[in-house]
Amino acid sequence: MRLSKLFTKTQKTTPAGEVSANAKLLIQAGYIHKEMAGVYAYMPLGLKVVEKIKQVVREEMEAIDSQELIMTNLQRPEVWKQTDRWDDKNVDVWFKTKLQDGNELGLAWSHEEPILDLMRHHVHSYKDLPASVYQFQTKLRNELRAKSGIMRGREFVMKDMYSLHATQADMDEYYEKAIEAYKKIYERLGIGDETFVTFASGGAFTKFSHEFQTICSAGEDTLFVNKEKTIAVNEEVLDDATKEIGVDKKTLKPVVTAEVGNIFKFGTEKSEKMNVVFTDKDGKQKPVYLASYGVGVTRVMGVIVEKFADDNGLVWPKEVAPFDVHLALLGDEQRKHAEAVYEELMSKGISVLFDDRDISVGQKLGDADMLGMPVRLVIGNKTGDKVEYKERTQQKTELLALEQVLAKLK
Amino acid sequence: MRLSKLFTKTQKTTPAGEVSANAKLLIQAGYIHKEMAGVYAYMPLGLKVVEKIKQVVREEMEAIDSQELIMTNLQRPEVWKQTDRWDDKNVDVWFKTKLQDGNELGLAWSHEEPILDLMRHHVHSYKDLPASVYQFQTKLRNELRAKSGIMRGREFVMKDMYSLHATQADMDEYYEKAIEAYKKIYERLGIGDETFVTFASGGAFTKFSHEFQTICSAGEDTLFVNKEKTIAVNEEVLDDATKEIGVDKKTLKPVVTAEVGNIFKFGTEKSEKMNVVFTDKDGKQKPVYLASYGVGVTRVMGVIVEKFADDNGLVWPKEVAPFDVHLALLGDEQRKHAEAVYEELMSKGISVLFDDRDISVGQKLGDADMLGMPVRLVIGNKTGDKVEYKERTQQKTELLALEQVLAKLK
Repeated sequence: MRLSKLFTKTQKTTPAGEVSANAKLLIQAGYIHKEMAGVYAYMPLGLKVVEKIKQVVREEMEAIDSQELIMTNLQRPEVWKQTDRWDDKNVDVWFKTKLQDGNELGLAWSHEEPILDLMRHHVHSYKDLPASVYQFQTKLRNELRAKSGIMRGREFVMKDMYSLHATQADMDEYYEKAIEAYKKIYERLGIGDETFVTFASGGAFTKFSHEFQTICSAGEDTLFVNKEKTIAVNEEVLDDATKEIGVDKKTLKPVVTAEVGNIFKFGTEKSEKMNVVFTDKDGKQKPVYLASYGVGVTRVMGVIVEKFADDNGLVWPKEVAPFDVHLALLGDEQRKHAEAVYEELMSKGISVLFDDRDISVGQKLGDADMLGMPVRLVIGNKTGDKVEYKERTQQKTELLALEQVLAKLK
Repeated sequence: MRLSKLFTKTQKTTPAGEVSANAKLLIQAGYIHKEMAGVYAYMPLGLKVVEKIKQVVREEMEAIDSQELIMTNLQRPEVWKQTDRWDDKNVDVWFKTKLQDGNELGLAWSHEEPILDLMRHHVHSYKDLPASVYQFQTKLRNELRAKSGIMRGREFVMKDMYSLHATQADMDEYYEKAIEAYKKIYERLGIGDETFVTFASGGAFTKFSHEFQTICSAGEDTLFVNKEKTIAVNEEVLDDATKEIGVDKKTLKPVVTAEVGNIFKFGTEKSEKMNVVFTDKDGKQKPVYLASYGVGVTRVMGVIVEKFADDNGLVWPKEVAPFDVHLALLGDEQRKHAEAVYEELMSKGISVLFDDRDISVGQKLGDADMLGMPVRLVIGNKTGDKVEYKERTQQKTELLALEQVLAKLK
């Protein structure tokens, strides 16, 4: 894509009233637009990042045989009343609205209940299990405060997966598979090394749920990890968990982290309340086992911004960057050469953000840093038939022939 | 994909209380799930159709240099009060809700105002124009009645595009381009022959807007078209429009149609009210010209269902079908052959829904018709090393070698 055509502009000033570093930077770079506190629109570059993250998550969910669908935003009270989660006293993040006939509706903040309600129509026998489904949904949550930019929004994109099983053992086995899938996701998103599976607080049927927590100074949680990083426990369950797993609290050190995923075994708790049953091999009707698995897609994007950005702007890991390469033409002498390189890179399947604008060298290099593609290529009056290659995270520049650049990009 | 793995099942009975043919059929086939009147979730096969339609629309919007973004569902009253469209008296489809501090918010039913508000940050000079953006958004509309299935929902997917211009002439030129892009969209979706650009009622600044109307007995509109089909006028503006274009009303015959697209020139009406201006070449500040262009993505899906479905089930046009081919294995003798054909087709880039289930021949052929892929391939105990080929819209079957099938699918 040509920067001369992109309608968003980078901005020198940070927006008034925005306190979060990720939102400030993303707004300055033109990736997002603030509609109100905790509610952000995604501009072309920002949407590309969201879609890249979604695609990584999608591939790993498909790899464990989950099937994509899309549930609804509008929610009927009856579905949620069955588990006592309609009441604002029990769930404090509902947005509620009304039909013209006065009947109340909710706006989806999660989907366990509607998923179980849906599954009544498709799960009848043990032969229909397991079933695993997932969606990318725009969730609405009426958060009291929303000061963490896209890390905790009132409107945000979440991947939520739900698995249904005939037995506890089946659920446990799939749950372990999902943990491995999640590890792959964070690995591919560039935050695998600093993301831990942790014990967190659970519900009635599981003493602990699991969270995926990434070391991030903008995070809201404190995690206690041991030196070899094989154990990580949330602060809220520190006493219980260390007792349970027989670890001395003193060997665990606190780090500030941000939650990037949350998985949870509901067991038969919800299906018993909602009477969602299947006929087992023995001919008896039994409640289905349910587990749910969330990844905050836009939240992870915020964590990536917070972790990697530097004083000059955004820094995107390879699998997340809106474009593989930022190509900047400096001056006008080599315009033909730059156009040819632009075409050549694209013909090789490399996505390129091409700064073909008629602006100053300083602005161009500043924007390249601000926008944060992993690789910057410069073609200018002094580079001749070569191309200057620089990685966003390195200071070193190299003057290379195009073939060498292509070899590096492979 | 293997049908043995798909969690949705086809259903023999139609859901109680559902009056719309498209919704009945899509629910029976497991494409959608009814959450409540006018609110449907999209199951894996249904979501694939939605994504296929979106991709066609996306490609044609990109071809006229529009850039994809995603705006928000949650809406601030201040943005809409500037044009008097916050008031329920002026817009009767708002869903409204409240933040925890009591402040009222709206749920987006359209996005002209927020788009203009956004553009303040990026459009300053005539050099920043034109700008064209589009999104695929889940719109919420508080419709009083919702009895047309996915053709008129309270929650539905819409593509809305907005173009901003410095002059009326620029807007007019782009508007014509958009009309051509829309024609290509309906052509690719398989309804081009029966879709007309019509004169419809407009706002203050344009006497007529344009609608795209498709002949469809389940539609809500009546269109008056002339024999050669070069003129089509909505009933509501029949008298004015025929006078304006100098056509005898008697030469126009009524047909029942469904709206599949709506485009509209706002001109400077909204930007004047909202004070969205740019600095022109002459140094003067001028309001931007705005036009908007909608395609109801899920609505078009409903129209396609209504137009093409037959007594046996769904019939999908090629570019819209969730899979290119439905492959059914009858009996078990040729299972190895069927597995090999399944792999071979996929290796050639052909998407296949493979019915590998252990159910009756009648059920399998019934499901193949019900699910509606354009081509059915059957491998059974009697087909030997051949494959039985049948198009969904034809009665004729042919026994072919795999190479012949591949040639036909090209």
